[in-house]
Amino acid sequence: MKERPLILVTNDDGINAPGIRALIEVMKPLGDICVVAPDSPQSGMGHAITINDALYGNRIHHADDQSHIEYSCSGTPVDCVKLAVSEILHRKPDLCVSGINHGSNSSINVIYSGTMSAAVEAGTLGIPAIGFSLMDFSLEADFNPAKKYVRQIAEQTLKNGLPEGVVLNVNIPKLKPTEIKGIKICRQALGHWKGIFDKRTTPFGKDYYWLTGEFVNQDNKDDTDEWALSQGYISVVPTHCDLTAHHAISHLNTLKF
Amino acid sequence: MKERPLILVTNDDGINAPGIRALIEVMKPLGDICVVAPDSPQSGMGHAITINDALYGNRIHHADDQSHIEYSCSGTPVDCVKLAVSEILHRKPDLCVSGINHGSNSSINVIYSGTMSAAVEAGTLGIPAIGFSLMDFSLEADFNPAKKYVRQIAEQTLKNGLPEGVVLNVNIPKLKPTEIKGIKICRQALGHWKGIFDKRTTPFGKDYYWLTGEFVNQDNKDDTDEWALSQGYISVVPTHCDLTAHHAISHLNTLKF
Repeated sequence: MKERPLILVTNDDGINAPGIRALIEVMKPLGDICVVAPDSPQSGMGHAITINDALYGNRIHHADDQSHIEYSCSGTPVDCVKLAVSEILHRKPDLCVSGINHGSNSSINVIYSGTMSAAVEAGTLGIPAIGFSLMDFSLEADFNPAKKYVRQIAEQTLKNGLPEGVVLNVNIPKLKPTEIKGIKICRQALGHWKGIFDKRTTPFGKDYYWLTGEFVNQDNKDDTDEWALSQGYISVVPTHCDLTAHHAISHLNTLKF
Repeated sequence: MKERPLILVTNDDGINAPGIRALIEVMKPLGDICVVAPDSPQSGMGHAITINDALYGNRIHHADDQSHIEYSCSGTPVDCVKLAVSEILHRKPDLCVSGINHGSNSSINVIYSGTMSAAVEAGTLGIPAIGFSLMDFSLEADFNPAKKYVRQIAEQTLKNGLPEGVVLNVNIPKLKPTEIKGIKICRQALGHWKGIFDKRTTPFGKDYYWLTGEFVNQDNKDDTDEWALSQGYISVVPTHCDLTAHHAISHLNTLKF
């Protein structure tokens, strides 16, 4: 008998977030589940790893037949993937899914996102991986309309695999099921966050800041994730960890460094 | 009279690290200097931003003529760039330099690196930016052989600019000045870190882990940074924040998602 697929589940909103609970529910029929997720919210942690602190991994749940185990981890989302693969799992997972994130990870958000960084880390280890995000920051976000598509994309990935080193960045618009037009394969729109700081003063007279910001989309072409989402599609961006600006190499070779 | 260039200096090893002191020394003849750097080591922080905590920025030094100011910041390297551009500086810097990092940021290290993430963040804000790293983790690393090249690359970048959204990832081998063969424009070698954990037990009986790892280079072609460094060259990789695996789009379009 063929082994059931082994699916590693993580996120950046923390192990108790409704988004990861929805993701676990969708994944359970597809394979054996190992959840290793942060014990506290880790949004905006990007590809951070913990090197100046010890890491803890606590087993908080396991089914008698080991078909569903859960660990909370004191580290970042990337730490969770590393700890799962190196210390917790006895074989390489067939799939790593991260999310469902409370909020969009389209465009430039991919570089700040702990959800996507966990998926990218799994990709560097040769594991097919997908980050799922719902465009709704609310803790009360309704993940139900997303579930059908999350399952569909996970099943197809388990069946077909992904090109080496490629992971999927899936963003789901906040729409009713009947309003979602389908799935589009896209590229990451070029955009950036303009930093805006809310300056305050402590009761003791010291200035401090809260980082907020404004997303500026510089790129509304119809092959981008931002465009697809604005039109009611689910965007799927193949993502990897090669940050080389290949197009700039020949130009730089003409300069005298 | 033309204004002197304004140069933003940051790093991830913290404002008191020898590497940033060497970088400041090299930059001072080239323009007015604003240092905004973490108040504590932030290695391995990747593109993390601080969203669940307040940020502090403390002015710790300023020259009477404002040609050299320094702020320590309680946040990550990316926070430092955002705070500098939005709150501290009165005009957009002409150049952002990050480093000199104590240790390599070649190949996959670029995604874990706070040094490079600060440069990439400046790039998203339209600022020409360079991350410098010396392949020597030691706090006693000798930055002197690197200085000539750091100056040369910074001067050329101030003069010629960089293609939009492109920043430079500069790695310098730990060699004597006479042993450095020159500068090579490269692409990021494909490699990954195999997670290795050092498992220990607290005095109270609880298991914990230290994350270590082993770098696996999968790609020794002669156009990569790893190859150039192994041959005694300084590697310069044009780097950007587009993580799209463009080559995978057509393949994914053939799958039924």
